[in-house]
Amino acid sequence: MTKPSPASHAFDRAIALQSEAGNLFSGHTSEAYQNMVGPFGGVTAATLLNAVLQHPECIGEPISLTINFAGPVQPGAFEIEATPLRTNRSTQHWLLLQRQGGEVVTSGTAFFATRRETWSEQQQPMPAAVPAESLPLLVRTERSWFENYDFRYVSGLFNPANPSAEQSEDTESLLWTRDIPARPLDFPSLTALGDVFAPRIFHRRQRFTPAGTVSLTHYFHADTAQLTACGERHILGQARAARMHNNYSDQIAHLWSDDGVLLLTSTQVAYYKE
Amino acid sequence: MTKPSPASHAFDRAIALQSEAGNLFSGHTSEAYQNMVGPFGGVTAATLLNAVLQHPECIGEPISLTINFAGPVQPGAFEIEATPLRTNRSTQHWLLLQRQGGEVVTSGTAFFATRRETWSEQQQPMPAAVPAESLPLLVRTERSWFENYDFRYVSGLFNPANPSAEQSEDTESLLWTRDIPARPLDFPSLTALGDVFAPRIFHRRQRFTPAGTVSLTHYFHADTAQLTACGERHILGQARAARMHNNYSDQIAHLWSDDGVLLLTSTQVAYYKE
Repeated sequence: MTKPSPASHAFDRAIALQSEAGNLFSGHTSEAYQNMVGPFGGVTAATLLNAVLQHPECIGEPISLTINFAGPVQPGAFEIEATPLRTNRSTQHWLLLQRQGGEVVTSGTAFFATRRETWSEQQQPMPAAVPAESLPLLVRTERSWFENYDFRYVSGLFNPANPSAEQSEDTESLLWTRDIPARPLDFPSLTALGDVFAPRIFHRRQRFTPAGTVSLTHYFHADTAQLTACGERHILGQARAARMHNNYSDQIAHLWSDDGVLLLTSTQVAYYKE
Repeated sequence: MTKPSPASHAFDRAIALQSEAGNLFSGHTSEAYQNMVGPFGGVTAATLLNAVLQHPECIGEPISLTINFAGPVQPGAFEIEATPLRTNRSTQHWLLLQRQGGEVVTSGTAFFATRRETWSEQQQPMPAAVPAESLPLLVRTERSWFENYDFRYVSGLFNPANPSAEQSEDTESLLWTRDIPARPLDFPSLTALGDVFAPRIFHRRQRFTPAGTVSLTHYFHADTAQLTACGERHILGQARAARMHNNYSDQIAHLWSDDGVLLLTSTQVAYYKE
C-alpha cells in the first residue's frame, strides 16, 4: 500500500498557513475536520501551534501550550497573529490570537525551549492495554473529523448507538489512537490527538448533551526525537474528570507511545449544559 | 485574638492594584511575598487575576486561568494590562500582560463565566488525611513568602534541614495549608494557594536544584458560595508529577475544602536544572 507523503495528508492541509506581514499568518478551515460547531478543537490548537513553528524567530521546541476557544470558528478564512512576547537565552514565550473578520475566535499562549540533557524520570506508567491491532476500529461518521482518526477503545467507550443501560460509575476512557491515514507523529499531530477524547460528561451519563472545550493546556514531555521514534504507530490515551460542577467539567489526560513513553500531559475545561 | 480585616492582610496589600486608564492597572511588588528570584509565583498569578476581578467590564466568576512566567519580576512597580478579548452572553475571555519597563514579565489568559445550576458530580474524592490541628506547623524562613503560609504536611515533606537518606520513590505531597494570619478564602487566595507546592524535583531527589514554574493553569471548580463556606479553615492540597524530562517537569495538583469539596484542579510545568 502506498502511503501518502505527509505534505499531502488532510491534516497537513488543515493546519497549513500562509506567512503574511510581520507576525501574521493566514489560513482556511478544512471540511475534513469539522465538528458540531466549527472545526475540531484539536486541529484549531495544532494550527495555532503551527504558526509558532513556522515563525522565523521560533527557537526550541514546544513545552507548553494553552488554547482558549473564545467563539465558534466559521467555515472559511482566518488570520493568526503569533507574537514572541519574550525571548530569553533558551526559552521563548508566545501570544497567539486567531481572528475572523477582526474578531478574536481563539486565543492562546505557548512556551518553547531548548532542552539540555538532565536527570530525567517518568513517574506515570502506561496503563495495561491489549495491543491496538487486537481491537476493532471504531467507525463513526456523525462528524467529519471522526473519519480522520483511528480510535480503538480499550475501555470507557460511549457509543450513542448503543449506550450502556446504566450510567458509568467513572469517567475514564482508555484508547489507542492515530491519524487516518497513518501519519508520522509530530508536535502538531500530537497537539490534535491530545484533544480527541469525547467530553467526559457524555461518557459519565451515556448520552449527548451540548458540550465543548473552552480551554485546553498541553505539556509536551516528548522532544522531536521521541516523537519521531513513535513513527506512525498508535499512541495510548487515557482521560478522566475530577469534578463536574454547574456547566463546567475538567479533564486530565495522558498520552503514551506504544512502548510506554509519556508524551503529553493534557488538561482541559469543558462547558456542558443541562 | 483580634483578627485583621481582609483589607489589612499582607496578601491583600500584595495583590492591590490601582486602576489606570483603559485596561491598565498599576501595582508594586511586596516584600512579604518574595521568593528566590522575584515574588512567589502564586501571588503574581493572584495579582493578574485581581486585575480581571477589578475590571469594570468583568462578568461572572473565574473558571480557568493560565499564567506564564516569562521573566523575573523585579522588586518595584509594575503595570498589568487586562483586555477582554471576547464577551459572549455569559462568558468572557481575557488576555493578561504584566510589564516592567515596557517589557513583558508575565503573560496569561483567563476565562470567566456565569454558572447555572446543572447536574453536577465530584469524581475525585479527598484523600484520607488526619486533621490539620493534629499536625505541626512547618516553620521555614528561607524565603519571605513562606512566613505567610501555614503548611502542615500529612506526607511528602521535603525538609532541606533533614533530607531523607534515600530518594523518595514517588513525587506526591499531601498537606493542609492556608494563609498566615488566617484569611477568608476567595479566588485570589485560592489562586496563590494552588501554587504553594515545592517543585516536585526537590521532593523526588531530596535536594534543592535551580527550579521554577514557567506556566501554571488553574481550573476553578468552586464558586463564590463554596469558597465563602471554607471560611478561614485549612484546605487540603495534593500534588504529584507525571514526568520529568530534560529540564522540564509537570505537576498535577488538587485542592479540597476540609469537608471534601474539590475546589481547584491545577497543573503546571516547571523548569529544573541538573
